[in-house]
Amino acid sequence: MVNENNEQATVENEEVSTEETEETTEKVEEVEVSAEQQKISELEAKLEESENRLLRLQADFDNYRRRVRLDQEAAQKYRAQNLVTDILPALDNFERALKVESEDEKIKTFLQGMEMVHRQLVEALKSEGLESIEAVGQSFDPHLHQAVMQVEEGEEESNTVLEEFQKGYKLKDRVIRPSMVKVKQ
Amino acid sequence: MVNENNEQATVENEEVSTEETEETTEKVEEVEVSAEQQKISELEAKLEESENRLLRLQADFDNYRRRVRLDQEAAQKYRAQNLVTDILPALDNFERALKVESEDEKIKTFLQGMEMVHRQLVEALKSEGLESIEAVGQSFDPHLHQAVMQVEEGEEESNTVLEEFQKGYKLKDRVIRPSMVKVKQ
Repeated sequence: MVNENNEQATVENEEVSTEETEETTEKVEEVEVSAEQQKISELEAKLEESENRLLRLQADFDNYRRRVRLDQEAAQKYRAQNLVTDILPALDNFERALKVESEDEKIKTFLQGMEMVHRQLVEALKSEGLESIEAVGQSFDPHLHQAVMQVEEGEEESNTVLEEFQKGYKLKDRVIRPSMVKVKQ
Repeated sequence: MVNENNEQATVENEEVSTEETEETTEKVEEVEVSAEQQKISELEAKLEESENRLLRLQADFDNYRRRVRLDQEAAQKYRAQNLVTDILPALDNFERALKVESEDEKIKTFLQGMEMVHRQLVEALKSEGLESIEAVGQSFDPHLHQAVMQVEEGEEESNTVLEEFQKGYKLKDRVIRPSMVKVKQ
């Protein structure tokens, strides 16, 4: 639209030039027309600039909106990451404590209560997207597992995870702690 | 700036009118000047509209940015709310289970381990802004406490919280669960 206006202005300027050669007597009028043509050119330039600024601002606004939406989606998706990460050490200790074996009835009852608490806690964490990473028997994956020990003995295929020293976790698709494992070389 | 342009245009139009009364012979020229004046007026109107749209868009953009910042601050502040709310029932059961009293050494050792796990869990929740609400001995506050029982007996001042049935919690300045209490009428 801006360009069309400019073309129009050029055409009008040409018309004026033609008139100028035909009617050289009306000097004063010519000067005045010229001043008006100049004003038209100025206005057209200003209009073009203003419309270009409008287009640029609109594009900036659209980009900003798009970026904000992506940021908000990511913030929403991983919103629990800090708290989950802080809870993992408590969860490790919880699971270690539950490994106690006893024939004592009182301890067994107490253990059952604690196992229920543990299940509830894990369910709450799962509902925010926490998943434990599979390790033992899997093929070693440096994105998921951290090898703290490598051994040569054993019948397993090379690169197999033999033992897990500490559970690893993902929050949705993000690994927040790799499993610490022993791997067959 | 746009308004100034308009005033200028009006002044120029008046000048043309004066000329018209003085030189009525140059009809053709007059018509042409008039067409150019019309073009100037049109351009000025378009420029004003474009600049107004620019100002409005800029104001919309600024408002949008301000709102996004506030939204992001709130989302960040209460990001852990869902997970914290889901964990509270596990925490209630955890605390109930820890109230066991025993002289048995094995149970005492097991209890100590579980108390450590509980402390770690509470610390993780605190670092995200969770605080328990004070209740017993406090003056009843309907924003913080939910009265599930009212009694008349006792020496305490009217409106005092006498007993807590379930702990209440705040996440930063937001009450996510009021304390369930017994109140002196």
